Amino acid sequence: MTFKLAKYFPILTWGRTYTKDTFVNDGMAAIIVTVMLIPQSLAYALLAGLPPQVGLYASILPLVAYAIFGTSRALAVGPVAVVSLMTAAAASKLALQGSPEYLAIAILLALISGVMLLVMGLFRAGFIANFLSHPVISGFITASGILIAFSQLKHILGVKATGHNLVEIIRSLLEKLPETNIPTLIIGVLATGFLFWVRKNFKPVLQKLGLSEKHAGIGARVGPVIVIVTSILAVAIFNLADQGVKIVGDIPKGLPPFAVPEFDMGLWRSLLASSLIIAIIGFVESVSVAQTLAAKRRQRIDPDQELIGLGVSNIASALSGGYPVTGGFARSAVNFDAGAETPAAGGFTAIGIALATLFLTPLLYFLPIAALAATIIVAVLSLVNIETIKQAWQYSKTDFSAMMATIFLTLTIGVEAGVMAGVAISIGMFLFRSSRPHYAIVGQVGHTEHFRNVTRHDVITNSRVLTLRIDESLYFANARYLEDAIYEHTLDNDKVEHVILMCPAVNDIDLSALESLEAINARLKSANITFHLSEVKGPVMDKLKRSHFLADLTGEVFLSQHDAIKRICINAYDHEPEYYL
Amino acid sequence: MTFKLAKYFPILTWGRTYTKDTFVNDGMAAIIVTVMLIPQSLAYALLAGLPPQVGLYASILPLVAYAIFGTSRALAVGPVAVVSLMTAAAASKLALQGSPEYLAIAILLALISGVMLLVMGLFRAGFIANFLSHPVISGFITASGILIAFSQLKHILGVKATGHNLVEIIRSLLEKLPETNIPTLIIGVLATGFLFWVRKNFKPVLQKLGLSEKHAGIGARVGPVIVIVTSILAVAIFNLADQGVKIVGDIPKGLPPFAVPEFDMGLWRSLLASSLIIAIIGFVESVSVAQTLAAKRRQRIDPDQELIGLGVSNIASALSGGYPVTGGFARSAVNFDAGAETPAAGGFTAIGIALATLFLTPLLYFLPIAALAATIIVAVLSLVNIETIKQAWQYSKTDFSAMMATIFLTLTIGVEAGVMAGVAISIGMFLFRSSRPHYAIVGQVGHTEHFRNVTRHDVITNSRVLTLRIDESLYFANARYLEDAIYEHTLDNDKVEHVILMCPAVNDIDLSALESLEAINARLKSANITFHLSEVKGPVMDKLKRSHFLADLTGEVFLSQHDAIKRICINAYDHEPEYYL
Repeated sequence: MTFKLAKYFPILTWGRTYTKDTFVNDGMAAIIVTVMLIPQSLAYALLAGLPPQVGLYASILPLVAYAIFGTSRALAVGPVAVVSLMTAAAASKLALQGSPEYLAIAILLALISGVMLLVMGLFRAGFIANFLSHPVISGFITASGILIAFSQLKHILGVKATGHNLVEIIRSLLEKLPETNIPTLIIGVLATGFLFWVRKNFKPVLQKLGLSEKHAGIGARVGPVIVIVTSILAVAIFNLADQGVKIVGDIPKGLPPFAVPEFDMGLWRSLLASSLIIAIIGFVESVSVAQTLAAKRRQRIDPDQELIGLGVSNIASALSGGYPVTGGFARSAVNFDAGAETPAAGGFTAIGIALATLFLTPLLYFLPIAALAATIIVAVLSLVNIETIKQAWQYSKTDFSAMMATIFLTLTIGVEAGVMAGVAISIGMFLFRSSRPHYAIVGQVGHTEHFRNVTRHDVITNSRVLTLRIDESLYFANARYLEDAIYEHTLDNDKVEHVILMCPAVNDIDLSALESLEAINARLKSANITFHLSEVKGPVMDKLKRSHFLADLTGEVFLSQHDAIKRICINAYDHEPEYYL
Repeated sequence: MTFKLAKYFPILTWGRTYTKDTFVNDGMAAIIVTVMLIPQSLAYALLAGLPPQVGLYASILPLVAYAIFGTSRALAVGPVAVVSLMTAAAASKLALQGSPEYLAIAILLALISGVMLLVMGLFRAGFIANFLSHPVISGFITASGILIAFSQLKHILGVKATGHNLVEIIRSLLEKLPETNIPTLIIGVLATGFLFWVRKNFKPVLQKLGLSEKHAGIGARVGPVIVIVTSILAVAIFNLADQGVKIVGDIPKGLPPFAVPEFDMGLWRSLLASSLIIAIIGFVESVSVAQTLAAKRRQRIDPDQELIGLGVSNIASALSGGYPVTGGFARSAVNFDAGAETPAAGGFTAIGIALATLFLTPLLYFLPIAALAATIIVAVLSLVNIETIKQAWQYSKTDFSAMMATIFLTLTIGVEAGVMAGVAISIGMFLFRSSRPHYAIVGQVGHTEHFRNVTRHDVITNSRVLTLRIDESLYFANARYLEDAIYEHTLDNDKVEHVILMCPAVNDIDLSALESLEAINARLKSANITFHLSEVKGPVMDKLKRSHFLADLTGEVFLSQHDAIKRICINAYDHEPEYYL
C-alpha cells in the first residue's frame, strides 16, 4: 500500500530524504526562478489575452500541485508561450477578448485539459502523445514562435490590431501602422534591442567580471527584470501614460480566489477538442524538457506519473483562477542550473509568487505593455528553429513535408488546424508506407542455405518454384497489395508450379491478411499452382492453427526456406534443387 | 499510344478478338441476367426510397459504360442492396423520401461518387480501399443485411413505418402493427416462403429433372420472376389493389431522360462524406466479386482500371436519371455461370433492360410492393454471415472487437457511422500495436554466433554489455517507447557500460526515431554508457549517413551482433567475450 501511494505521490519518496542542504539549494533556486517568473507570468497572460493577475495565479497553486505529484526534480511549471497562444486561439473562437466569458473559457480550458491529463495518467495512456511526430512538433513550435512574435508587434507599435493567423495579423498591422504611438514604439524598440543584447553579450560580460559560467548564465536571465524595472521608472518619471503609452494599471491585490468553474454542458463539449490539443502539446513539451534535465543527473521521470502531475497542476490552476500551465524550457533550465534538487523548489517558488501577488502588484502599475511584449518577442524567437527544418530536408523528404505542412497550416489557418493536419499527415504517410511493404523475389546464394533478392544478388532460381519474401507484418492495409504482388508474378507466368511465401519478417497476420492468404491459396489452386509458406514465426503459427487456413493450404509450411526448396524439388521433380533450374 | 489507349479502354483489347461464338455466349448470359435484373432493379429502387423506374434507369447506361471501361469479364453492374441502403441513409438526412429533392440527391450521390472513383482511378489511388479491413467490411455487410431485412417488413405488413436504425425501425413497426393489411401480409408471407423454398430446394428438383448442376443453379434464380408474375396476376384477378394492397402503379414509359444535375455548391459539399463512403464500399464489394470470378478462369482484373470503370458507370447513371451502382455478387455469379465471356454481355443486358423499360412497364402496374419486399428480404439474408463472426472470435480478439463495434454501431446509429467507426477502430488498433513493438534483451547461444531472447533461451550474457533487439521499424509512434525501454534496462543498472541496439528488423528510421536515438546516445553518454548499433540494414545506414548521428555516436556501428560483442569485449576488457561474464 505504501509502495503504491509513493508511486502516485512522488513527494513521499524524495521527502523522506530531505535535508537542510537540499532545503538551501531548493530555496536559492526558488528565489532566482521567482524573479524570472514574475515578468514571464504577466507577459504570457498578456499573450493569452488575459488580465495580468491570471498569469500570477497560474504560477502559485499549480507549482504546489506539481511539487506533490510530479516526478521531475527540476521542471518549473507555469504559463508558457505556446500554450498561452493556444489558449488565446481557443478562447477567442467563443468569446470576445477582455470579456468575463473569455476569462471563464480560459479557466475551463485549464480544468478540462487537466482532467484529460489526469485520466490519461491514471489509465497509463501517455502513448497517445507519441502520435505527435517530432517534425510535426518542431514545425508547430517554430510556426507558433513566428505567430506569437508577430502578434506582439501591435503592443510595440501601440496600436489595436487583430488576427489569428499570419496573413490576418500582417494585414491588420499594416492597416493600423499610421496610428503608431511614438513613445510606445521607443520603449518597445529599446526594450527589444536591450533584451537581444543581453541574451547575446551579457553572459561573457558577467564571466569577465569573475562569475562562473553557470552563474553568469543565470545572471544573463535577469534581462527582463532590468527591462521591467527601468520601463516602470521611465513611465512613472516621464508621465508617459498620459502620452498614450498603455500600462498594466491596477492589478487586484491578494491571493487568487478559490472557485469551481460553472458546468455548462454545451460549452464543455465545444471546448473538448481544444482542451485535448492543449493537454497533449503541453504534455509533450513538458516531458521532453523533464527528460532532458533528468538525463543530466542520471535520474528518471515516469511519463505516466507526469500526466498525473500536469493534470493536477492544471486542475489546481483552474480552481484558483488560472489558465493552462505546463513545464517551460527556459525556466526549468534556470531552475536546474540554479541547483534545484527536488520538486520542493517549485513549492518555494509558489510562495515567492504568492508574496509578489500580495505585496508587489502596486509597483507594477506603471509597467508598459510594450515592455512585456518585448520580453515575449525575444523569448519566442528562440523557438524558431531553422536548423531542424534543414536537417529534416536532408534526412527524409517525408518528414520534411509533414513539417512544412504543419508550419504552413499553423501560420495560414491557425494553431489547432496546424497540429491536427500535422498529426493526420504523419499518420497517413506512415499507413501509406506500411500499406505497400517491400517484398523481394528471392533465390539461393551459391550452394549455401541463404536466399537473397534476385535483383541484388547473383542467385540460383528455379523457373518452376517462385519464392517471394515479404518484409512486413501482414495486416488489412497491405493484404491486398500482397495478393496483387503474388498474382503479378504468377498468373502471367505459365512455368510456375509452386509459390513459396517466405515470412521471416512477419510478426503478425491479422484476419484480413488471413483471408487474403486464403484467397491467394484458392486462386493459385484454381490455376494449378501449389502454395507454401516458409519461416513462419512461432506466435504467428499458433494463430494460423486456430483457423482453417492450414487445412486448406495446398502446399506445406516449412521451417526454413532451404528446407522448402529442397523438399519441394525432391518431391515434385525427384531432383536436388540447385542443379535443375 | 495504342498501348496506353487500350489500358484505359479495355474494350480495345477484348474487342479485337471478338468472335461469333463469344457473341452467342454473351447474348445467352445477357438474356438470363436481364430476366433476373428486372425485379432486382425495381426492388432495390424501392429499398433506396426511389420510384421504380430509377432502378431500371440505373441498369442501362451504367452497364454500357462498364462494358467499355471495366476489366472484369463477368461483373454485372447495377443497383445492389447495400449501396441502395446507403443511398437511402444519405438522401433521407437532407430530404423527404418521395420528394423531387430526394431524387435529385440520389442522382447527385451517383455523380459525386462516380467522379471520386474516376479521380481515384486516374491517380491510381485504389489503395485507399485497403484501409477498410475485412472484419469491418464483413461486419458492415452483415449489419446492413439485418437492417435491410427489417426495413422491408413494413411492406410485408402493408404499414407506413419509419426509422434509420434497428431500434427506431422495430419501435415503429410495433407501433404500426395493428394497422396491418391482411391481403398484403398474405402476399408477403407467401412470396417470402416460396422464395426461401426455391433457394433451398429448387436446384435439386431441377437437377432431378435432368438439368446439369450449372443450369439447375441458374434455373433456381428465376424464383423472383415466378413470384412477380404470380403476384401481378393475383392482384389483377382478385382486384387486391382495392383492398389496400399497395402496387407499383404507373411507371413512366420510355428511355431515361438525359440530364446534367444542377450544381449547388452547398449541397455538393454536404454530400461529400456520404459519396466517399458509397464510392469506397461499392468499390470494395465490386472488386472482391470481380477478383473471385476472374480467379476461376485464371484471368486478372486491374483494380485501378476498375475504379475508372465504376466511376464512369456511376457518372453515366447520374446523367441518365439513375442512382449509385456497383458490381453485385449474385448477378455477377449468374452472368459468369451463364457463360458470359466479355463485358459485352453487360452491354447486351443494357439493351434488354432498355427494351423492358420501353415495352414492359405497363405489365408491372399491378405488381404488389410486398412481393418486391419479399425478394429483397430473401436476397439480403444471405449477406448475414454468422460464420465469419465466429471465425473472427477464434482467430483474433482484436479483429473480433473491430467487427462487433462495426455491427453494433451500424445497427444502432446507422450505416455511415458504422463504417467510419469501424475504419477508425481498425487503424487505431494497428497504430496502437505498432507503437509498442516487441523487443528482447538478447544473449549469445552457446559458443555460436547466434543471439536470442534471454527469457526464452539458455544464453550467455555479459553484465557490462547489454544488447536489446527491437523487432519493428522505428518511427514516431514507437520512438519514445524505445527510449523508455532502453532507459529502463540501463539507468537503474550500475553495471552496464555498453548498450548495443540490434537492428535486423528495422526497415526504416524516421526523423522522430533518429532524434530519439540521438537522445538515447546523449543520455547514455551523460551516464558514462557507450551506445552501439549492430546489423543495421543498407538503406537505413544510407539514411543515417545523411545525419549527425553517426558523428555523435559514442560507440560504433557493427555489421553483425557477434562482431559487436567480440570487438567490444576485446577492446574494452581485453578478453574474448564468452568467458568473462
